[in-house]
Order: sequence, then structure tokens, then C-alpha cells
Amino acid sequence: MALDETASGVFTIAATPFHPDGALDLPSLERLTDFYVGAGVDGITILGIMGEAQKLEPAESLAVARTVIGRAGVPVVVGVSAPGFAAMRALAREAMEVGAAGVMIAPPPALRTDDQIVGYYAEAVAAIGDDVPFVLQDYPLIIGVVIAPGVIRRIVAAHPSCVMLKHEDWPGLEKISTLRRFSAEGTMRRISILCGNGGLFLDFETERGADGAMTGYAFPEMLVDLVALARAGRRDEAHDLFDAHLPLIRYEQQPAAGLAVRKHVLARRGVIASDAQRRPGAGLTPAARAEVDYLYDRVVRRGLGVRGPL
Amino acid sequence: MALDETASGVFTIAATPFHPDGALDLPSLERLTDFYVGAGVDGITILGIMGEAQKLEPAESLAVARTVIGRAGVPVVVGVSAPGFAAMRALAREAMEVGAAGVMIAPPPALRTDDQIVGYYAEAVAAIGDDVPFVLQDYPLIIGVVIAPGVIRRIVAAHPSCVMLKHEDWPGLEKISTLRRFSAEGTMRRISILCGNGGLFLDFETERGADGAMTGYAFPEMLVDLVALARAGRRDEAHDLFDAHLPLIRYEQQPAAGLAVRKHVLARRGVIASDAQRRPGAGLTPAARAEVDYLYDRVVRRGLGVRGPL
Amino acid sequence: MALDETASGVFTIAATPFHPDGALDLPSLERLTDFYVGAGVDGITILGIMGEAQKLEPAESLAVARTVIGRAGVPVVVGVSAPGFAAMRALAREAMEVGAAGVMIAPPPALRTDDQIVGYYAEAVAAIGDDVPFVLQDYPLIIGVVIAPGVIRRIVAAHPSCVMLKHEDWPGLEKISTLRRFSAEGTMRRISILCGNGGLFLDFETERGADGAMTGYAFPEMLVDLVALARAGRRDEAHDLFDAHLPLIRYEQQPAAGLAVRKHVLARRGVIASDAQRRPGAGLTPAARAEVDYLYDRVVRRGLGVRGPL
Amino acid sequence: MALDETASGVFTIAATPFHPDGALDLPSLERLTDFYVGAGVDGITILGIMGEAQKLEPAESLAVARTVIGRAGVPVVVGVSAPGFAAMRALAREAMEVGAAGVMIAPPPALRTDDQIVGYYAEAVAAIGDDVPFVLQDYPLIIGVVIAPGVIRRIVAAHPSCVMLKHEDWPGLEKISTLRRFSAEGTMRRISILCGNGGLFLDFETERGADGAMTGYAFPEMLVDLVALARAGRRDEAHDLFDAHLPLIRYEQQPAAGLAVRKHVLARRGVIASDAQRRPGAGLTPAARAEVDYLYDRVVRRGLGVRGPL
Repeated sequence: MALDETASGVFTIAATPFHPDGALDLPSLERLTDFYVGAGVDGITILGIMGEAQKLEPAESLAVARTVIGRAGVPVVVGVSAPGFAAMRALAREAMEVGAAGVMIAPPPALRTDDQIVGYYAEAVAAIGDDVPFVLQDYPLIIGVVIAPGVIRRIVAAHPSCVMLKHEDWPGLEKISTLRRFSAEGTMRRISILCGNGGLFLDFETERGADGAMTGYAFPEMLVDLVALARAGRRDEAHDLFDAHLPLIRYEQQPAAGLAVRKHVLARRGVIASDAQRRPGAGLTPAARAEVDYLYDRVVRRGLGVRGPL
Repeated sequence: MALDETASGVFTIAATPFHPDGALDLPSLERLTDFYVGAGVDGITILGIMGEAQKLEPAESLAVARTVIGRAGVPVVVGVSAPGFAAMRALAREAMEVGAAGVMIAPPPALRTDDQIVGYYAEAVAAIGDDVPFVLQDYPLIIGVVIAPGVIRRIVAAHPSCVMLKHEDWPGLEKISTLRRFSAEGTMRRISILCGNGGLFLDFETERGADGAMTGYAFPEMLVDLVALARAGRRDEAHDLFDAHLPLIRYEQQPAAGLAVRKHVLARRGVIASDAQRRPGAGLTPAARAEVDYLYDRVVRRGLGVRGPL
Repeated sequence: MALDETASGVFTIAATPFHPDGALDLPSLERLTDFYVGAGVDGITILGIMGEAQKLEPAESLAVARTVIGRAGVPVVVGVSAPGFAAMRALAREAMEVGAAGVMIAPPPALRTDDQIVGYYAEAVAAIGDDVPFVLQDYPLIIGVVIAPGVIRRIVAAHPSCVMLKHEDWPGLEKISTLRRFSAEGTMRRISILCGNGGLFLDFETERGADGAMTGYAFPEMLVDLVALARAGRRDEAHDLFDAHLPLIRYEQQPAAGLAVRKHVLARRGVIASDAQRRPGAGLTPAARAEVDYLYDRVVRRGLGVRGPL
Repeated sequence: MALDETASGVFTIAATPFHPDGALDLPSLERLTDFYVGAGVDGITILGIMGEAQKLEPAESLAVARTVIGRAGVPVVVGVSAPGFAAMRALAREAMEVGAAGVMIAPPPALRTDDQIVGYYAEAVAAIGDDVPFVLQDYPLIIGVVIAPGVIRRIVAAHPSCVMLKHEDWPGLEKISTLRRFSAEGTMRRISILCGNGGLFLDFETERGADGAMTGYAFPEMLVDLVALARAGRRDEAHDLFDAHLPLIRYEQQPAAGLAVRKHVLARRGVIASDAQRRPGAGLTPAARAEVDYLYDRVVRRGLGVRGPL
């Protein structure tokens, strides 16, 4: 089940459930895995930024990988970004050994020039091995590294194991169009493009040529339905569906605060036992929780893209 | 018509119209002023970031101020942020002489600590004079300076001429609640809070205690209606209205790209002659223009918060 | 041998030696420890930024700590900065168990406001325990977090376990004077201030009230002699000594590139077997190596502050 | 006297003298011009970052240009960086009309990718005209834009009017070597490289292939002598001279604080009437002033590279 360029649909970004005391909650992670699969996702991405990967010990990271991979039945991508290549290599090899479909690598914040970015991925591939399929994560809003389309093309050309872009540049629609134009012109191997950034532009991203979503919105069934409608060319219906969720998507896509919203909704839906984040991490105030609940209720009342537990 | 703490409602951020060759288009600015006033705004803010103020010569800035102030009949706030206090002082004094209600000052990007921010505003007030009412602009996403609630309180305490906060922190709802709690507790003079950030959270900002909006969304009549509904406590109607516009608001609120969207809509509505930006500034690709038009048509079809020219 | 506010003199920042293949080189670390102690340092700080701490696995970090602590005979401070408090706590407790004198904590790059910084250290102290003496690392050039003197005062007031400031702000002389004035006025408990930033201003930092140096210049004996001369009030001699080394200090204090210089000198002095850095990390070009050697030879020829192996 | 690729030697960065009340002090600027020329500089650069250009009104900028150009008798480069191309064009054309040899353009802080930087300079050249020789300013420490050697090569290839690089990257020695290698290989037109960054690495920059200095150290005669010694291949003498000044150079090269040091020395030497900066701008504390005076006295006592008024 190795990841390749044909991957499409919805790869959900999995939250990592914790108990209120900060301990890893593996039973919740099992339920969460079942919930995602039940929603119809095509894959699961674990240990990303929203999975609080940086707060985990190596042994915990591996436990999360084993749990999800052993249960999901869909391809699992494992985030392996790390300050040093030794740790990146260790996690990548371990993840592949326990059955991951591929890994995801974000650039470190200090990179600036095109050559620095290209060079970093060359070193990363040397570290993890060129037999491990990887996803290039492009998230300037949070990471601070801007990757031009031409740089993505250089990385794709240099590394056959680069099979997917996690696209979350903002604004980012033109970047998708440019990359697809490169492929149409024959100047770039076509890779999978799945979109993150909380799904805030997913309605148009699919129209621009993205293959789907890689984000963790707490109603993953909506993402699944939206991609299906977009594929079927049912444009207005896709937008109607998207617009019904946009108020909550918008609320969830707040830097630093968004994970608390996502975990609250997952907890309210009964999927995870607690919305706790491992420290450091901010929770919701009562006012914010009430606002999320208000938006949640409006989404449910509209009844579009809502299945499973509520 | 001096600005004071009681200001509320909608102060629109005015775009600055240019001809395709980059020359200032004052007739369009006159029409734009009439359009804003016709939409029911309570004030107009000119020469802000979205007004391309940094690209204007001093004489042009003054011409913009004269044109809008001479025509509007509502209070006009003039952005006077500048790298040096001499230029800030000159523009502030000139603006007040031609009838501005107050000025707006953003912190320079290099500020970091609480004391640096407080100190900067002390110097700015010394420069412009403590008789000039000013708006504190708080826009970390673009400016990079994070201003804690306690710092706003210190600035408000130190300067009676600080009468308004242009709130556009993101996430920012808790900041509004905190500032209003300060005033309820009696530890901070109550000032006007108008919200920017493209209006992306205006539905909840009004519920948290904001007095209205200061943003330049190209359907200002929606902002006016939303604030009226919120004031009347008609919560669900306010959200229905807001949600009808959110897909376009979301599209307009993209860093760097948003102004092109806004100008395109204003031009399509026939208010300004050209959507040109003075260089440097990016326009819309055909694909993006088609997307904006699609969203525009959906907004018009829903028919909520849409009045005036289309 | 717990660290406290009376610590003074030179705490050298220890490099972490690696073999060319990236494996940890513990025999070189033993020699390096002996070398530092032989140079007369008062303490050793391990696992800091220049110790490539971020590239180490937890087990390796502990091995480094055991090796140095077991051999040094002087207080050892262990850097425990980490993205999550669980990892910070684990390393801090383990380090103290094997005999560390205290730990060092740098703020994470995302912090901006005074309250955020103060709050972070409160959480960190809760994580490691208030019985563990800690050093506050203040290095805005690399970390991007600016900590005002008043913020340091708040942290010191809140946490008796904060016993030392690793001062490496730039410019930073006024900060030392301000902190010492706070203590003279009785508004701040006097803590130890040791200066980093490559030692680039150590000549004046000692005159402003710093208690010494915490940096890793590859001639630590010069730092020891400089602090002794400064304590003895032999100002001109102190500056003569410092000036003789400044060309090399300046060359070593280059962001990102400096560690390669430092390791090259340590290797040339025969202390460590290889100047290799674990990846990612840049080495010296032949031209740069020749320049460092030229400066090295000039330092040796002047003969000030040079003892031990050459 | 148009600037071209053969420019070499020392182009001093001119301070802009103000009276204590912030008014421009043109008589001091005349004396300063005479002082620079008397020190043997090959050119003068005005209205740069250290010239407080951002704090000047357009009319003042022009007055500064007229004063220096009318008096200097050496080529004068005028900084024309501005947020908008209209202002850049206006100042560039006016400067050339009054006799400037060329202009200098720094990239705006928001640029990130290689293409963005190349594109910006294309727009800038279109704005000022391709007949105006320009200097590319490369100062990442202050501006935040990192320009790779290959990007400089692309700009040089695209614009024959790009005749000089103001090199102040840090670390930056390898960049000089790389650019000179490009020219030796025939892949890049050879342009003039003058080095800034306070002169902190000028001893080696000249050895790496730089043509001289473009910085404002307050003993410009030292820069002139150093370049002459380097040209003559008298390496040890060059380093002896440089090392005698390095303690003061290092003190002067502090972000934000450095200009105050420079102006204090110029005022102490009797060249400018006041060390005042236009606001916002920080002065020296008494302690800092005493430290600068101490270093000044040591420089004078050594007697190397010190001529003219003291």
C-alpha cells in the first residue's frame, strides 16, 4: 500500500488524543481511526503539526503509528519532520517498517532561498532513503518558508520518491494552476496534490486541479462528499455543501486556536474522550466553546455533509 | 466632527482608485465616496494599508483626504503611519486642517516588547499632538507586531486622545472580550472597537462587544445591515446574512491578493473606473476573476445584504 | 553542586563531537571536558544550540550529560529546551538525577508579548519542578524572541529557581545595566548574569555588571583570563587581551557558520578528533579554513590568553 | 561621472546630520562631505538606511542630494528604495538630474522566493529607467530578504544597468567567492562589489575579491588605507590596521544602536554639529558614550588609519 502519484480523495489529518493529564489516549485514537475510515476517507496522515507531533517522545510517535496503521485499512502517511536528519531517518524507517504508506516532510523555518529549499530536500531524501515515498508539505503561514512552483518542480524532478504535495499556501490557488500547467506542458511529472490550510479554499482548489484534501476538519464526511461532487462536475452543489460548513471551517482555521476547536468537535461527536491538548497548548474559553457549539448546531441543522455520530 | 470613544457602526476602509497607468483617479474616488455613504456607513477610513497609502506621494495623500472629506458628510479617519515622525506629524496636521475626524497609526514592524510598543505610541502622540484623536491599529498578521490587551490598556490610559481600536488580530475574539472585561471592571477607559481583518469574524466580534466594523469589504451595505441586526439582538438573522457573504469575504481576505478582489468587485459594481493598483501590486488572473464573479453572482442571487449598484 | 545566584566566572558552552559519519564521539567529548576544565572554567553548559542538541536522540542527550557530568568536577548546566513540556520534563529530571547543577531553557520562537513569555516560563517551571535551578536563555538574534528587562524581572520574581540569565541580546549592554540597577534599587533579586553571543562584547559586559561568560569560544582560557583581569580592575590589560582575540571571536560569531569555525579550532588544537557536524550542518570551505588558520596563527603569535594544546 | 562596473575603493555611507530639534543641518552636511572627500574616499552614498532616508520628506531628500553632489567632486550614489515605484522613480530621476552617479535599491522586506526578487528588480528598473545605473543592496540582517548568488547573477544578466553589489550578507565571504567564480567561469558579467555590514569583515572581503567598501565607519580614512594595503598585497599590514579598529567597528556595528555611535564619533571629531537623530531613533546612554570614547582613545593612541580631525 505504498503512496504514489495517483493518490487522491481525502487524507484526513489525524488529531492525537490525550487524557487531561497529558498522557496519550490510545483507545480514543482507535475510535478516531474507525471514525475517519467510516467517514469514507482515502487515507490518514498522522504526526503532523495538528497532531502535536513535536510534543511526542519517539516511543509515543511509534505507538501512534502502530495503532493507526494496524487498524485503518487505508494508506497512512506519517509526519517525520525533525530538526536533525538522524531523528527523521529513525522515525521514517520505523514508520515504514510498521506499514506506513509514506512520510511527510516540512521544511525547517530557517530556509530562505530556492537553493536552500532544494538542498534541504536532497539531504532529507538521502537521510530517509530514496525508496520511501514522501509528501512535500508547503505551509508558509505557519512555517514561514515560501516555496515557489519552480522549486517544487525541481524537487519533483530530483526525487522520484516525491509523490505528493500537501498544498497549504495562502493565497494558493494560482500555485495549483501553475503546477498543473507545468505538467500539461510536460515540464513536470504529475504528482498528487492534496490541500490543507484547514480546507478554507477547498471549493476552488478542486476546480483548479487538486486531487483532494489533506486536512483535519472535524466533519471529514463533508470533505469526502465535496471531493465526490467536484469530481462529478456538480459545481453548484459542491459550493452549496462547502458554504454550509464554511462558518465552522473558518472558525477552525485559526492559527494556534484551531486545534482546540477541532478537538472540541471530535469530543462532542463522541469520537475522542477528551479535547485536551498536551502542553503547551491552549484550550477554548467558555465563550469560544459556545460559539463553536452554535456553529456546530447550524451545520447539523442544515444537514449537508453530516453523517455518523453527532 | 471629531472622532471619540462613542464611534460605532461601520467605518469602511476606502480603496484608492487609480487609472491603469497608475495616476490617481479622483473622479472615481468621488463616486466611491458617494457609494460608501449611500450604503449607510458611519465613517470612512482612508490611506490605510488597503488604500495603498505607502505608494502615494505626500501631495497625493492630501488630495485624497481633501476629496473624501469634502464630500462624505460622515467622519473621515486618515491613516498617517510613516517611518518617521516628521512625516507622520505633517500628514496628521494637514489632515486635521482639512477636516479629518481623526487619524490612524499602526506600529512599525520592528517593535517587539510591550514597552517598545507603549513607547512608540507616546512618541507618536508627542509628534501629532495630543489634541488629535487617534485610532490604534492592531494587525499582527500583516504588520508582525503582537499587542497584548494589557498594552492596549496602557496606551489608552496614557493618552486620552486614543479613542478607538482597529481590531484585526487573528485569532482575536478573546482580545475583544478581555478589553471589554477591563472596562467592566473599571480598569480601562472604554474606547470604540471596530473590527477589520476583512470582516472574517465580524459575526462573532459584534457579539463579543465590538462596536462595529472597520474594513473594506466590497459590499459595505452587508456590513451595515449586519451591525444593525447584531445591535437588535437578531442573532440568527445576523448569521444568515453573514454566512451568505462569507464565501466572498473569505476570498477577499487573502494577504496581498485581497485588494485585487475588492477593486474588481467595486469596478464590476460600476463604482470605480478601473481595478488597477499602483505598482507594485498584483492583479487577478482570468481564473481568479471568474471565481470572484461566480461568488459575486451567488451573493447577488441570495439577495441578502445587497443594495445599490450591481 | 546545585547552581545558584552566586555562580560566576566562565561556563563554557560545550560542543558535541561527532565522527564524520554522524555518530556521537564520546572519547572526544571526554577529552573536550578535560580541556575545558584544564582551561580553568567554572562550569560547563551542554546541549545548547551550539551543542547541536536538537539533532540528538533522547538517549544520546543523556549519554552526553552522563559523560560530561561524570568527568568534569565543575557544575554542569544542561540545555532542556524542547517543543513540548513532556520532553523538557523528562530530560530535566534525568539530567538532575545524573548530577547536573541546573538546566537551561530558551523561549520557543513563536512567543511575542511580555505575558506570553512570562506564561511560558511558568509552564516550564511547572513541568520541570520548582526544585530544579534554571538558566533563562535570552538570545533574540537566533531565537527571535525579545525579552525586556522588566520581563526578566517578572520571571525572576515568580520563580526562585531562576538563578541565572544567559545574556546574549544584541545590542545588550544597556540590558545588563538595567538589570543591575533593578537589583541596586531593590526591585529585583540579584541573579547571576553570564554572557554569550560568542563573547563579542565580553570586554564591556563584565564592566556593566555581568558575572562572566557563558560561551564556547575555542580559546576558553582567554575567557577565563579576561574575567580575572576584569575582576581585578585591570581594565586596559583586559581590553588588550580581548582585542588580541577579537578578530577570531568576530569570525567565530557568524550565524550558522560559527560552529564550524569553533569545531575546526578545537580539532586543530587536538581536542576533538573531527570537526564534523551532524547533518544538517555546514562545514568550512578551504578558503574559510585558511582564514581561520590565519587568524589562529596571529592569536598564537600574540601569545595572550593562549595556554594548553595548540 | 556615471557609475559603472569598474567602480572600486571606498564609497562612504553618509550620515544625515540633524539639529537637536530634528531639522536638517545642511552646513554640517557640507562639512561632512568635505571630511569624507578629505579622507580620500572614491565616492559617497547618501540616503541609505544609515542616512535615515525613511524619515525624510521628498523635498529634504532632494536637498541632501543637491548639497552633497554639488560639493563632493566624487561620484555620489543615492538610495531610492521606497514602498511604491512612483516615489522611487521620482527620486531617481530627480537625483540623476542634479548629478548623481547612480542609485541604490534594496528589496522590500516581504520578498521571499528567487522569482519574487528577480521580478521586483525588473519592475524597479522599468520604473527608474534602464539608463540609470543602480546598486543592488543585499542586507539580509536588517531587511530580512536573502538573495542567493544565482539570483544576483540573474538580475545582473537581465539588467545592464546593474553595475554594483552592495554586499552586506552575514556570513557573506563565500558569496563574494561564488560571484567572482561565476565571472571567472564566464557565467556572469563582472560587476563592482563594495562591502557594507559596518566593515566587520572587510579584512577578508577584499581578499575574496571585493573591490572595496561601502560603509560609513566614522574613520573613513582607515577604510581607504585598508583597501590600498589590500590592493598592494600587504596582507599582514592590512590586518594590523584593521585589527586596531575592530573593537570600535564591532561596537559601531550594532543593529539600531550603531548609528548613534557613528554620529557621536563624527560629532566628537568636529565634523557634524550634533549627534542627534531624527525621531524615532535612539541616542547613547552616558555609559555607552564613555565606552565609545574609551575605544576612540585607544584607536587614536594606536595611531593607525587615523588622519584628519580628532
